Amino acid sequence: MLTDLLTASNPLPEELDERLAAQLAFVVEVDRLKTVLRQSPLAAAARRENDAEHSWHLALMVILLAEYADEPIDVGHTMALVVVHDLVEIYAGDTPLYDTVGAATQEARERAAADRLFGLLPADQATLLRGLWDEFEAKSTPEARFAKALDRLEPLLLNWMARGGTWRTPGVTAAVSRARTSAIAEASRALGAAAEAIIGEGERRGWVASEA
Amino acid sequence: MLTDLLTASNPLPEELDERLAAQLAFVVEVDRLKTVLRQSPLAAAARRENDAEHSWHLALMVILLAEYADEPIDVGHTMALVVVHDLVEIYAGDTPLYDTVGAATQEARERAAADRLFGLLPADQATLLRGLWDEFEAKSTPEARFAKALDRLEPLLLNWMARGGTWRTPGVTAAVSRARTSAIAEASRALGAAAEAIIGEGERRGWVASEA
Ligand SMILES: [Ca+2]
Repeated sequence: MLTDLLTASNPLPEELDERLAAQLAFVVEVDRLKTVLRQSPLAAAARRENDAEHSWHLALMVILLAEYADEPIDVGHTMALVVVHDLVEIYAGDTPLYDTVGAATQEARERAAADRLFGLLPADQATLLRGLWDEFEAKSTPEARFAKALDRLEPLLLNWMARGGTWRTPGVTAAVSRARTSAIAEASRALGAAAEAIIGEGERRGWVASEA
Repeated sequence: MLTDLLTASNPLPEELDERLAAQLAFVVEVDRLKTVLRQSPLAAAARRENDAEHSWHLALMVILLAEYADEPIDVGHTMALVVVHDLVEIYAGDTPLYDTVGAATQEARERAAADRLFGLLPADQATLLRGLWDEFEAKSTPEARFAKALDRLEPLLLNWMARGGTWRTPGVTAAVSRARTSAIAEASRALGAAAEAIIGEGERRGWVASEA
């Protein structure tokens, strides 16, 4: 949590005005999201996915899959939620979906990270981004519920393509996968049915265990 | 251009309905954007940036920097433009900003890639994504002009942080960098001035050459 800002060793030109300088220093700092690795393997290469790529993938899924939201959603607002949703992991790290130990401290770690990260921005934008992150975490709007659903659906697709992926984490079964992805059906009956098709067929093929 | 789809070797479950199956196969296929490398070095790690990370970075910049657009813009629409803008590079590859040889064939290669890629989607969504990509390329709206400006500003920030980066490409000078990033000032006087501050100070420090 006490790492220097990336721009500390190489400040942006002094002639920028204060507000824009803070915004651009933040834009540079969040480059770190590209280095936060998730557990999910890519479908297109033999390496794990990072948070920035994952966030982009969700944004595209919002555009393509919004029609399946059970409650009407604003596409632009949902995109803003997914673009911002993992930023705190820059300082808090990724907590894998199947990591119950990490989950216990996740909330406190992420809240401290949010205070530091969003505090770099001008006050109005700190409030804006903190609000988007809180909305996503609390699933307090149709947009947040749909964003959370996509956040659960994307790794299911990657597990399918890997013929296992994080489904092979010790202790994970089809029932555990169903429980961890229940947010999908909460926001979309159609995508919930697709998730069940993927988990069910994955189970039949032995890509996710039936019993622990 | 004739690569099989990623899902060809591992089709999604058959019970998905046709429209959703096509959409999800597209979602899987665009995982490839995470493997398309740009020339720009990351600020946060010693490797080059990929197109998916870059597209995410632009989407966040839209949220933070929209206030500097000289013409009013719709933030959600601008995010959709940047999320989609590099997709054709999945089949056409990245054409670096300073690659004049590649630039000669870029338009034809990218148009063929767009036909194939967007053709995977249901017809209405193929039209939607093709329209977003055409709008971005043609800079035909305030949103597209601002999206293009951010597409030019982000690598300038990465070059600054690398104390050179692609500025050190043979043949590139401060004048070349100014010409290649003129889209920034076309959409935003404030961001255009920031770009000039970055290039000008980069030149004074010897990170970009004054003369070829
Ligand atoms: Ca490009």
